[in-house]
Amino acid sequence: MDFQKIIAVATKRGIFQPAFDAYGGLAGFLDYGPVGVRMRRRILEVWRKHYVINAGCLELDGALVGPEALFQASGHLGEFDDALVDCEECGKQFRADHLVDGGEEMSRADLAKAIANISCPNCSSTLSEMRAFNLMFATSVGAGKGTPGYLRPETAQSIFLAFPWLLRQNRGKLPFAGAQIGRSFRNEISPRQGPIRMREFTQMEVEHFFLPSDEPELPSELENTKITLLPAHGKENQTTVGEAFDSKIINSSLVATHLARAQNFLISIGVPNEKLRFRQHGSNEMAHYSSDCWDGEINTSLGWIEIVGVAHRGCYDLSAHGNASSKEFRVPIPGTEQETEVWKPDIGKLGKEFRGNAKLILEAIKDIELKPGITVNIDGESIGLDESYMALKMERKSQMVYPNVVEPSFGLDRILYCLLESSWNVEGEREWISLPQDTSPYDLLVAPLMTKDKLDEKAHEIMKSAIDVGVDAYYDEAGSIGRRYARADEIGIFYSMTIDHQTLEDGTVTLRERDSKNQSRVPIKDALDRVRR
Amino acid sequence: MDFQKIIAVATKRGIFQPAFDAYGGLAGFLDYGPVGVRMRRRILEVWRKHYVINAGCLELDGALVGPEALFQASGHLGEFDDALVDCEECGKQFRADHLVDGGEEMSRADLAKAIANISCPNCSSTLSEMRAFNLMFATSVGAGKGTPGYLRPETAQSIFLAFPWLLRQNRGKLPFAGAQIGRSFRNEISPRQGPIRMREFTQMEVEHFFLPSDEPELPSELENTKITLLPAHGKENQTTVGEAFDSKIINSSLVATHLARAQNFLISIGVPNEKLRFRQHGSNEMAHYSSDCWDGEINTSLGWIEIVGVAHRGCYDLSAHGNASSKEFRVPIPGTEQETEVWKPDIGKLGKEFRGNAKLILEAIKDIELKPGITVNIDGESIGLDESYMALKMERKSQMVYPNVVEPSFGLDRILYCLLESSWNVEGEREWISLPQDTSPYDLLVAPLMTKDKLDEKAHEIMKSAIDVGVDAYYDEAGSIGRRYARADEIGIFYSMTIDHQTLEDGTVTLRERDSKNQSRVPIKDALDRVRR
Repeated sequence: MDFQKIIAVATKRGIFQPAFDAYGGLAGFLDYGPVGVRMRRRILEVWRKHYVINAGCLELDGALVGPEALFQASGHLGEFDDALVDCEECGKQFRADHLVDGGEEMSRADLAKAIANISCPNCSSTLSEMRAFNLMFATSVGAGKGTPGYLRPETAQSIFLAFPWLLRQNRGKLPFAGAQIGRSFRNEISPRQGPIRMREFTQMEVEHFFLPSDEPELPSELENTKITLLPAHGKENQTTVGEAFDSKIINSSLVATHLARAQNFLISIGVPNEKLRFRQHGSNEMAHYSSDCWDGEINTSLGWIEIVGVAHRGCYDLSAHGNASSKEFRVPIPGTEQETEVWKPDIGKLGKEFRGNAKLILEAIKDIELKPGITVNIDGESIGLDESYMALKMERKSQMVYPNVVEPSFGLDRILYCLLESSWNVEGEREWISLPQDTSPYDLLVAPLMTKDKLDEKAHEIMKSAIDVGVDAYYDEAGSIGRRYARADEIGIFYSMTIDHQTLEDGTVTLRERDSKNQSRVPIKDALDRVRR
Repeated sequence: MDFQKIIAVATKRGIFQPAFDAYGGLAGFLDYGPVGVRMRRRILEVWRKHYVINAGCLELDGALVGPEALFQASGHLGEFDDALVDCEECGKQFRADHLVDGGEEMSRADLAKAIANISCPNCSSTLSEMRAFNLMFATSVGAGKGTPGYLRPETAQSIFLAFPWLLRQNRGKLPFAGAQIGRSFRNEISPRQGPIRMREFTQMEVEHFFLPSDEPELPSELENTKITLLPAHGKENQTTVGEAFDSKIINSSLVATHLARAQNFLISIGVPNEKLRFRQHGSNEMAHYSSDCWDGEINTSLGWIEIVGVAHRGCYDLSAHGNASSKEFRVPIPGTEQETEVWKPDIGKLGKEFRGNAKLILEAIKDIELKPGITVNIDGESIGLDESYMALKMERKSQMVYPNVVEPSFGLDRILYCLLESSWNVEGEREWISLPQDTSPYDLLVAPLMTKDKLDEKAHEIMKSAIDVGVDAYYDEAGSIGRRYARADEIGIFYSMTIDHQTLEDGTVTLRERDSKNQSRVPIKDALDRVRR
């Protein structure tokens, strides 16, 4: 199944469509329809099961718009850009690395040289010099001139910034992981390929924090996970995660852990193992924050598509926010505690002076290193605290260190596209999506053979029982039963149930399995038991 | 439980916190933490059950960034503003209607008069003249100068714009409803009250489309729903939805239906019936698109807070997009079919000329009234179609009409806040959140009495069984059992289970109910059966 066909069928079947076509379209944005929303939700449910319920990650849902200082600290306003060239003749704009063979892996200097010999793909005129184009969407928050704000380019920054809060929720203990499902935004220069290169997309990210001296080991139950690796220096090879770690192909035990986990998740939602590999980034390709990165890629009609990245981000992000902001992002190193002089707030004085606000001030300074002259922000107002509000006391204190982090980052839109492509089957006239039940949009089609003789009434009754026991059921009474099976197959409904005259007599129905087309006659209750996930 | 206390406790317990406090904060944005994300998810699950699964709404997940033409057509770039005044002395900015008693219900002219006598609440200087401040967040899409784009101010517009697509998914049949859960954005002038007035918030909206001549009736099972109404002209009174419709207090049967449904939903998630009323908008207060609107309001420590609006939007939105865009947003009126001359595409000529793109062109013109000179947008390029690509043919055609729409629109952030406030209980030292199990963040606390004698091992084993049968369980082994019950109560975990030495002997556990504190000794399996939702 190829790209154009998937796009056309996705629109027809209510999976997704290009957004805003009534107004000429806006490239890089999609609407998900009734079937697509269900598929996405099912994929997210499996993801949450893996990461939040079983692995115990702490879930966060952060704001999508953030202040300038945050993205200055994270490096996104400085280094998060693509190389742009434009044609002065026809006005078209291009990503330089898309015009050169192997451009995505080139350094900017090499790319600039390579692009010098290339003319406009549209009108063959000379192209401009290459320049950096920042991928952040900018806006302004508040009335009048407002404050600069940006749409987040990754959900990860919300988790990093919430680290001190999440650490408190975990009662100060490391390691722990934060997880987030949410929208992110990148102002791509020329997005073309439907759900593959989007300007607005949904990510599922985990940030697994740990003490640098105490990296979590590779769990024994993951050691024997078979995996296909393409290292930056070396050949593609099939190995186990344990062997790859032992032989230093994968340097970090937590990166190894998350490669295995990511693969387990992807296979459970229906990604074919034989189309999946993990490719290590070369040094030119690596993001500014990353010290090691492996892309989980699926082989599609468009080539290898990245659907997950597992990156070792070191302490890049936490130290960036620790240095740029007023909060403490470090943690104590166990066993380094000793007596130290520290500034402590004078609670009595604060209460007398600030009354109701004193509590808020104490809350605001709880996580930071107090010192005279510090400023806190209460309800939009800046309050300066000089020496008179604090006193030096002796306290047992530890040396502090920034935790390290390993991040698996999934792209939901791409995952859905790749699943559609890999699970689409054609056999003569018949077309069907063969996803596992857990990621099929519905568990069950409920179809009365005809809409007379009270068959439809009975079908509605069964529909209600199905919903009551948690079965995601779809009712369809339009057209021949063959036509209804065909429609159900086309969106990948896992089972079909037909209600006929015999149902009224003996309470049995015909249950059909989507992939095998096997049909069996069973009592209603047994059928629903089989369909229940 | 009052506002300041809720905000403080929400931060402490991992429900929500003001976003970006490390960078001085950005008013109007929140982060939801591990407990808050669970509560929100549970509320949304119940909502989906009501609207998507039981009522059969077609779910959509649309893009958050949209083009200028869309929001010009919807009226949001013209009329979606607040009245702003600023102080030239201290520079502070205020919403004019917040400075005047009853300001929110005043017309702009009255407000301008009333504000003339008011001085700056901050420094008592003279305020500027009142001016309109548009609430849309603006950005720019694409490289170079880019195209203007805006963050959507309501999820509704995504549904309106997707109406032709959703109608096709429903095989052209009316009535049907689109539903959407998603983020929206409003650049409020001075948001202050935590989750009540946010710049970025989550909505759950339903757009119920119907033929103007065929409005869905009030279902008999909803007629006797008791409801408290405060009409625009009249006194607050308790009545039934059926009586209110019969006596024309509520004019539209579908508005009546959705008032009843909204109330049923709100009560099922734990809103106390006696704190809920529906207040009709006066004409000054009504949004530009609305012909009738009722706000579902909850009585809180901050006064009455709107958490849902049920609005009759007529055909305002669909006709606005039909007039401004290239798409057909009307539907045929049944029984008006007759022979008419219409332009039809010359498929052979299109195929010859445009080859691969011909299919995309046919797809693009499928829903619009074809005529010579029309322009279609294919993959970012404009293609003009003159008379040579089409021919006049006779066809049976109907008169067309714009459907009407009734919209229930819920605000998730406010709902969560109001639930926290109304379900917070204090009894001496004990504090607990008494939400129904369906909206509690966890079903079950699993707590070994101590971490020795293999009690913790047994507890982990039970934890796994609980997760396997779909119970949302929380494991806690830290501190005394009383302290753990207290922590579980504070975030509203519905049941607690204690594993002790007797558990190892006879396989029974102590199961405690949160609200009654009743404890009983039951076999593990029975306990899990009771806890399962």
